[in-house]
Amino acid sequence: MTEPTMSQESASFEECANAIRALSMDAVQQAKSGHPGMPMGMADVATVLFQEYLKFDPADPDWADRDRFVLSAGHGSMLIYSLLHLTGYARPTMDDIRSFRQLGSPCAGHPENFELPGVESTTGPLGQGLAMAVGMAMAERRLSAEFGADLVDHRTWVIAGDGCLMEGINHEAVGLAGHLGLGKLNVLWDDNAITIDGATDLSTSEDVSGRYRESGWHVVECDGHDPAAIRAAMDEAIADARPSLIACKTIIGKGAPNKQGTAATHGAPLGEDEISAARRELDWPHAAFTVPDNVLESWRQAGARHQEVHKAWQERLATDSNKDEFKRRMAGDLPERLGLNRHIDALLKEPQKVATRKASEMALSAINANVPETMGGSADLTGSNNTKTGDMTAFTADNPAGRYVYYGIREFGMAAAMNGMALHGGLIPYGGTFLVFTDYCRSAIRLSAIQKQRVIYVMTHDSIGLGEDGPTHQPVEHVMSLRMMPNVDVLRPADVVETAECWEIALRNKDKPTILALTRQGLRQFRMEPSESNRCAKGAYRIKSAGHVRRAVLVATGSEVSLALEAAERLEKQAIGCDVVSMPSWRHFNEQPQSYRDEILPAEALIVSIEAGVTLGWERYIGRDGLSIGINSFGASAPGDDLFKHFGFDAEAITAKIIDKLAD
Amino acid sequence: MTEPTMSQESASFEECANAIRALSMDAVQQAKSGHPGMPMGMADVATVLFQEYLKFDPADPDWADRDRFVLSAGHGSMLIYSLLHLTGYARPTMDDIRSFRQLGSPCAGHPENFELPGVESTTGPLGQGLAMAVGMAMAERRLSAEFGADLVDHRTWVIAGDGCLMEGINHEAVGLAGHLGLGKLNVLWDDNAITIDGATDLSTSEDVSGRYRESGWHVVECDGHDPAAIRAAMDEAIADARPSLIACKTIIGKGAPNKQGTAATHGAPLGEDEISAARRELDWPHAAFTVPDNVLESWRQAGARHQEVHKAWQERLATDSNKDEFKRRMAGDLPERLGLNRHIDALLKEPQKVATRKASEMALSAINANVPETMGGSADLTGSNNTKTGDMTAFTADNPAGRYVYYGIREFGMAAAMNGMALHGGLIPYGGTFLVFTDYCRSAIRLSAIQKQRVIYVMTHDSIGLGEDGPTHQPVEHVMSLRMMPNVDVLRPADVVETAECWEIALRNKDKPTILALTRQGLRQFRMEPSESNRCAKGAYRIKSAGHVRRAVLVATGSEVSLALEAAERLEKQAIGCDVVSMPSWRHFNEQPQSYRDEILPAEALIVSIEAGVTLGWERYIGRDGLSIGINSFGASAPGDDLFKHFGFDAEAITAKIIDKLAD
Repeated sequence: MTEPTMSQESASFEECANAIRALSMDAVQQAKSGHPGMPMGMADVATVLFQEYLKFDPADPDWADRDRFVLSAGHGSMLIYSLLHLTGYARPTMDDIRSFRQLGSPCAGHPENFELPGVESTTGPLGQGLAMAVGMAMAERRLSAEFGADLVDHRTWVIAGDGCLMEGINHEAVGLAGHLGLGKLNVLWDDNAITIDGATDLSTSEDVSGRYRESGWHVVECDGHDPAAIRAAMDEAIADARPSLIACKTIIGKGAPNKQGTAATHGAPLGEDEISAARRELDWPHAAFTVPDNVLESWRQAGARHQEVHKAWQERLATDSNKDEFKRRMAGDLPERLGLNRHIDALLKEPQKVATRKASEMALSAINANVPETMGGSADLTGSNNTKTGDMTAFTADNPAGRYVYYGIREFGMAAAMNGMALHGGLIPYGGTFLVFTDYCRSAIRLSAIQKQRVIYVMTHDSIGLGEDGPTHQPVEHVMSLRMMPNVDVLRPADVVETAECWEIALRNKDKPTILALTRQGLRQFRMEPSESNRCAKGAYRIKSAGHVRRAVLVATGSEVSLALEAAERLEKQAIGCDVVSMPSWRHFNEQPQSYRDEILPAEALIVSIEAGVTLGWERYIGRDGLSIGINSFGASAPGDDLFKHFGFDAEAITAKIIDKLAD
Repeated sequence: MTEPTMSQESASFEECANAIRALSMDAVQQAKSGHPGMPMGMADVATVLFQEYLKFDPADPDWADRDRFVLSAGHGSMLIYSLLHLTGYARPTMDDIRSFRQLGSPCAGHPENFELPGVESTTGPLGQGLAMAVGMAMAERRLSAEFGADLVDHRTWVIAGDGCLMEGINHEAVGLAGHLGLGKLNVLWDDNAITIDGATDLSTSEDVSGRYRESGWHVVECDGHDPAAIRAAMDEAIADARPSLIACKTIIGKGAPNKQGTAATHGAPLGEDEISAARRELDWPHAAFTVPDNVLESWRQAGARHQEVHKAWQERLATDSNKDEFKRRMAGDLPERLGLNRHIDALLKEPQKVATRKASEMALSAINANVPETMGGSADLTGSNNTKTGDMTAFTADNPAGRYVYYGIREFGMAAAMNGMALHGGLIPYGGTFLVFTDYCRSAIRLSAIQKQRVIYVMTHDSIGLGEDGPTHQPVEHVMSLRMMPNVDVLRPADVVETAECWEIALRNKDKPTILALTRQGLRQFRMEPSESNRCAKGAYRIKSAGHVRRAVLVATGSEVSLALEAAERLEKQAIGCDVVSMPSWRHFNEQPQSYRDEILPAEALIVSIEAGVTLGWERYIGRDGLSIGINSFGASAPGDDLFKHFGFDAEAITAKIIDKLAD
């Protein structure tokens, strides 16, 4: 790690900014890969922000009340790596930076929240950083309302590029932030008029500032290379009660004399010659990966400037009456009591036939009364997703303590905002839409997973069982295609008790997102016996043992479990013994010991999967010789019961198929 | 089918509009499911449009130069069903309408292009109808430039709701249309201030009109229940050279006296009492599903009003020198010569080691010279996706004959626009982005598939092989998760020859979309022998036969085929015979006769799959006893070769695993 050795002539603003430029172009050159244009273009803006505005303490990257900074234009990752190094974070070291984009380096191609403290979010998929920042600003407001401004009072800063602003999600994020009046959200737009394909006017004619204004934002423009102008713009943004867009007019790749201002600086090394020319242009005679002591010292001083503020905050926390609860919340630990055991006890006494979306609402009623950190919502399907429990008020510009978000028809924006809330800490976000519309927010679900965040997706209307809305609304491939996304827990409960158990799993999935796939239609309760442990947590478990010699095991999920029980009854009447297994979670089942898996899915029996979705994937459990009952086409529009019959999902048809197969 | 029997007192505008209202509320009531609010609210606007503005001929729904009408707010499907019936299309009959939302009825919950001529596109997933309409308007402009206004000169009309406008894709569609200056695109916004959750101000504060203006649109407002005001607004829209948003102030559910203006009319039957009240309110004493003769006659006359125009157009076509080409294009038939055979012959003479994205560009060079109907593009990754061939000029406001679209950073908008072009007919759209960003446009890919449209997705950077950009940019689950989407052809070619063959398959996939998964990194050519037929069209084929007794079959796709060949060579050296199979398309392989499949994947050999993606799904071919070499976690940031080694994708590691497995 580079350390300042002695105090020298203090560094100028330009030198400080040029340190970013030099590190960025040198690291990209060394890696033979990367994006020098953005860090070089935004070096001045970032220097003003990190030296004078951003509230942070490199000695404690987890300080709860730090300002959040999101590099939405994640390809410019050398900007944040430079800043973290220069301001004095323990990592990245200069060696880390030298190994930019190499295996094992924390300085990955795009910033990754799990690699470096100080990187608040994983960015790269364009538009999502800004949309996550909206969620962070929402979390700040909610927590500030709960715990007071003494503990929570910080801003959220974003650097975004043209790509972030052109993506559709930007419209959703901007609309949501404007509506909620998130005045502590400030977006620094790298307005360089260049995209990968060339000048922005190849593809857009939009007046970006105008659009933001129409969405309730404050907009200010500045010369992104003039520190005084940048400061004035930031001051204006801070003073305004609305979220702010600061349009920073910049030159992409500034400092590279022959390439600056062109797409050539965007996504490729500048080349040795241009780098030499840039060194002359910037008056930066230092060797690659060398920051002069006086420049480093200026940066380190800037990095240290909130130590007192941080200390004062810690003192306030130490004497705050809510101290323990605040710490628990920010640590992401659950309260002792989730409220679910009592709920399940009541169900065992008085069984319920309800849709699992309704069962989810019942579980949530218990949870929301006991787990104050939940933040619910829906993308305009509140009544269909059953996401709002009786005690919840809307989170609005006027009611920052509200626990329910009317996200509007913005699935992608909702998912990204939930990522932001989870990243901020202190909240457990959940939000609903129809399962088929995971397609609208799939990239954000993937970012929940990559970032290891506890985000709970309440996805209802989970099969053709939704009925009349037809194929555009009927998930067929969705459950399976989400199962194959790394680090996602897909849970498809089969009755009201399983739904409660799945909610418990979701809350305890501290380092991953959960997809709850829930029915529109009612399902009878088959879980009648008390259980010492959460049975769904095994992933799959036997709910009926063969009465005759076991010849088949019917494995089903969600709404098809009742059907499997019905089919099993018919088979037993014909002296064909069969187990029925409910498999709410593949992930959890795969994590069980081999002995358990073999016991549940014994090799000698015919394994039959029953799920109203694609069969591709079920071969994992049924093998080549098993039977998979599913749907490999799009659905159709008709009442749900008719569709189940039409697609072969009735006990009679299933029984016939199994008997047929056994006779093979 | 209801037929007018005799001329009576001619029907008033109100009666005509009320016929829509009555059919809509009655059909929803009968179905006990559906959305009466929108058709009732937009009945007046739709009556003006279909009786006075829209150019169409119910006797020939496929008339190439008809105006296109897209019901983007697809849940209001009873609006289009009413209109098609009333104006005299052969279907839906009144019986079809009576069976709204029932199994087998063409009147599905949401409009489906494959069910009813006159339904131009399948809508329901919000925002996409409008975005497809942008593609239709682009197609009209391009074809008009190619074939002249004598043959192609029509408008594209859209009815969209608040949901369509809040979705992120709206920003992309509006930005693209504004930039391209699509003056013949007119969007009628059902500005009723209601969403499912309640008033729009629950979730949005945006000035929609302002936003459209900032994006280069003309905006005009009108009272959506005043025919004169609607006409004036439409006239103004037609006169303006920009695309137009016509904000129609409406009352949702208009006519239902106790529920109109509220979310209660949106998505549920009104109920018998309210329907009775509405009949009184509307002065519509007729029984359910009964349209008085004079009203029907007025509608039928309106439906017939373009017969002369249509005839004149047919006469122009009959004498047009481009007649045959125009007919071929609109029929979607390919030209005799695609240019690929000669290209492949050249490759056999002079083998090439290139990335398959480059191979795709080489194939496209041949195709674009021979297939004039292609319309290429990329979501701001032209140089990375290799989608622009030398001869292509940009399609812009000033160059409507251009064949290349700079879509900007708008993956979802691009995919939807391509759907619109394909639906319009006359063009074969292809467009590129990184494979990982299929997540941004997945719902549009699904709509390509549901709508049975030939849209070609050029998805490059198809694995960890892309290297340094890291996990956010590296597809892992994508190839498999796209394979499970019904009616999608996922092709992952393994060398330059396979890439050309896959392009041929994509062009011949007339009724489905194709995903081409292409590498960033170079792949050596292994196809050296001439072939009578397209080998990739078999889905999988043997590229190397076992030299020793066959003990294993290595099945690989794309970039892993070379690796499989290398591993096989090592195994043969140890006297372990193995076949190598390239499997560019699961779909095509599954369609082969059992005998062929058994020959390629013999039951007695160990089947080993090698693909740099999730293994879930490969059990279909390897069975329970096979070996699947894949990646079940997110990737990492490092040079591609390092990553392949890191994740176990080198010949040595693979060989060791196979030997191990064989020893089991």
